[in-house]
Amino acid sequence: MTRIKPRILKGFRDGLPETMIPRERMLRTIAEVFELHGFSPLATPAIEYSEILLGKYGEEGTKLLYRFEDNGGRDVCLRYDLTVPLARVVAQYAQLPRIFKRYQIAPVWRAENPGKGRFREFVQCDADIVGTAEAIADAACIEVGAAALKKLGVERFVIRINHRALLGGILKEVGVGDPDRMVEIMRVIDKLEKIGEGKVRELLAPLMPASGIDRIFELFTRQGTPQEILEEVGRFSGNRETREGVATLEALFSHLTAMELCEVTTLDLSIARGLDYYSGAVFETTLLDRPDFGSVMSGGRYDDLIGIFCGRKIPAVGISIGVDRLFAALSDLGLLPRRPSVTELLVTCFDADRLPATIEYAALFRRLGVRTEIYPGAEKLAKQFKYANKQRIPYVAVVGPEEVAENSIRIKEMESGQERSIALETLKQTLKEAGPTLAALFAETT
Amino acid sequence: MTRIKPRILKGFRDGLPETMIPRERMLRTIAEVFELHGFSPLATPAIEYSEILLGKYGEEGTKLLYRFEDNGGRDVCLRYDLTVPLARVVAQYAQLPRIFKRYQIAPVWRAENPGKGRFREFVQCDADIVGTAEAIADAACIEVGAAALKKLGVERFVIRINHRALLGGILKEVGVGDPDRMVEIMRVIDKLEKIGEGKVRELLAPLMPASGIDRIFELFTRQGTPQEILEEVGRFSGNRETREGVATLEALFSHLTAMELCEVTTLDLSIARGLDYYSGAVFETTLLDRPDFGSVMSGGRYDDLIGIFCGRKIPAVGISIGVDRLFAALSDLGLLPRRPSVTELLVTCFDADRLPATIEYAALFRRLGVRTEIYPGAEKLAKQFKYANKQRIPYVAVVGPEEVAENSIRIKEMESGQERSIALETLKQTLKEAGPTLAALFAETT
Repeated sequence: MTRIKPRILKGFRDGLPETMIPRERMLRTIAEVFELHGFSPLATPAIEYSEILLGKYGEEGTKLLYRFEDNGGRDVCLRYDLTVPLARVVAQYAQLPRIFKRYQIAPVWRAENPGKGRFREFVQCDADIVGTAEAIADAACIEVGAAALKKLGVERFVIRINHRALLGGILKEVGVGDPDRMVEIMRVIDKLEKIGEGKVRELLAPLMPASGIDRIFELFTRQGTPQEILEEVGRFSGNRETREGVATLEALFSHLTAMELCEVTTLDLSIARGLDYYSGAVFETTLLDRPDFGSVMSGGRYDDLIGIFCGRKIPAVGISIGVDRLFAALSDLGLLPRRPSVTELLVTCFDADRLPATIEYAALFRRLGVRTEIYPGAEKLAKQFKYANKQRIPYVAVVGPEEVAENSIRIKEMESGQERSIALETLKQTLKEAGPTLAALFAETT
Repeated sequence: MTRIKPRILKGFRDGLPETMIPRERMLRTIAEVFELHGFSPLATPAIEYSEILLGKYGEEGTKLLYRFEDNGGRDVCLRYDLTVPLARVVAQYAQLPRIFKRYQIAPVWRAENPGKGRFREFVQCDADIVGTAEAIADAACIEVGAAALKKLGVERFVIRINHRALLGGILKEVGVGDPDRMVEIMRVIDKLEKIGEGKVRELLAPLMPASGIDRIFELFTRQGTPQEILEEVGRFSGNRETREGVATLEALFSHLTAMELCEVTTLDLSIARGLDYYSGAVFETTLLDRPDFGSVMSGGRYDDLIGIFCGRKIPAVGISIGVDRLFAALSDLGLLPRRPSVTELLVTCFDADRLPATIEYAALFRRLGVRTEIYPGAEKLAKQFKYANKQRIPYVAVVGPEEVAENSIRIKEMESGQERSIALETLKQTLKEAGPTLAALFAETT
């Protein structure tokens, strides 16, 4: 038998339990918050016909698609995000409600150059509202995103909000009329945070007049409340796009005030978002304690995307939590303690004769809700304790002949080294009162 | 703009909320039971180097692999199951504990001919124990699987258990010595339930002597306890394989007795399992009320698979819940009621002026744990109620000028048509006592 070297593809990751335990908890929390706000789960396939995905993400995006011929010769792609599949679903199923709130937490694939924090397979975590152009829907997406961050223990963050049409209106006002040129300029502006003002001015120089560059940077750096800045923009430009943008953002910020989100939201006229399909409000989120992680939550309105699949305009808005960045940041901030195992209690295997009793004891703990495993094999107790130690399992129980005879159990708290012998009846009573944690047994003795 | 027809690939599915709400609940329950038994979550990439997967699933399996060249010209495959990736992981990471209990719930891809209940993308749900050859590990896998089924409300099922080496030993005894021939015969026997005894005998006729066929069917149809049947097998054959199989199964059934699983497990000498990598105990599970759904949970021991990647034998055993079949069966049995939305309460939008108050009311319900959404837009109330009806949202609240002035809310129970006006303070108190369900408000009035 030839040995095959175990290896994974560059840009892909295995999630060992130490990472997956807090990560799954994070994802479950996000899903619960999404549902609390009335978003229902949706699933779409990993593979789509290529024509569904092509041309939706800009030129750069198309290059990053995992595209291949399937076993039946069909031209297919792995999904690049969860938004385009949602648009397809909305166009495809007539039975969906007119206003459709869905969330989806699932992997997407992009043939990126892998690098620090950039992977070829990563999980997206999206909540979207389809079927209404009202700013209350934009606000509801921002609200659910902020609620998720807060539920995860993040308090210090800022959601920066802008409007694509507004930015377009401003550019028009300073002399950029050509839509293609406008998209190009927005892509440059989108890099502002990464590359700084000097570099952006440099890149903009060949694309628009110098006076225009000065004027937009004046607006970008204006201090004030969203209302004050919007008023100033209104004075500066009265074209259709700016008017629409100002009106929408005024309504949006008034809803955010009612949602008590004033303090975590702000207007930032330089936010552009890279993707082509955004049409209205756009958002980006920075953690104040770790701005170096970039935007951990972003989204916006894409009123023209679904129409590509159904021929009529169906407005939509959504938010996407960047769980990889968020996970890295939360770990860094100590908000997601790591453990290599879910097990709370290891029941040792004293000897083969005691195995039936050991099995019964473990079943009892599980009925009481304690995450319990049995060491599989009557090896030396020292070895079994060593396993618990390496796995950082907090409690170890011994079921020896004495314990079986006396209907009791001996439990060791691994960190403190404390041991207790306790009658099963007492144990049941204690756990029923204290909930499924063995800490209660040791709290009592101190 | 050319309209692109929204469609998905044959053999793939969209999971609309009506399906996904109960399905996600089912998967979450299974994950919780896995963790209660000390299995920790593991994730592996969807894409693997082809050489990792090729040759592990038999000839038929290889044909079903989604295999392609990635953007860097690498020969890659979408994963076919979760067992081979687990084997790779165990061989690849030295830091894993010597005994490794992991679960994984994730999609796999097979280019099957799609048909009733057969999809090209489906979720597998596996729990495995790596690093021990003890029968207690086999028993622990069966135990966690049975616990998951019970937690899902399934009481009437049977887990049929056999042993690959035992079956091999019996075949050897009746004159089939050649290992290739043996595998071929096992594949035929594996189809027994699908195609019946007559057809299996026919297919076996060219592969082994007629007397042997009679003898194995005598054993297959023998009635009795596992212990009685194993004794009979022991009398019939004393070769190494049979002895090993009998000893393992005796231990396994003794553990299952201690686990109080006698009544849901049985010995069935005709179980073979299709996949090539099984080496020891093998299991299949039938729902007694819906046997037509086939095996909803299966697995077994594969002691030689990990060695392919690390050059030394690392024993392993696992169980896999067939969630698609199980979901179909549970829906059929009425154990998974369907709803098109997660929302418990729709807060209507009375008019634009009342929107700030509406937002505050919704936030209050969410703080009390009630899954709440706001209708996004001040449309006619009748239209908003119609939306709630179509979405089968059980409660609808109206926040009009009167309610705002009186700090109260009007709630309608959609099914009964009952309405109540209630002061916010009373509401808070009631929900704090009754938990996050509005049913309590209406229970009181009757």
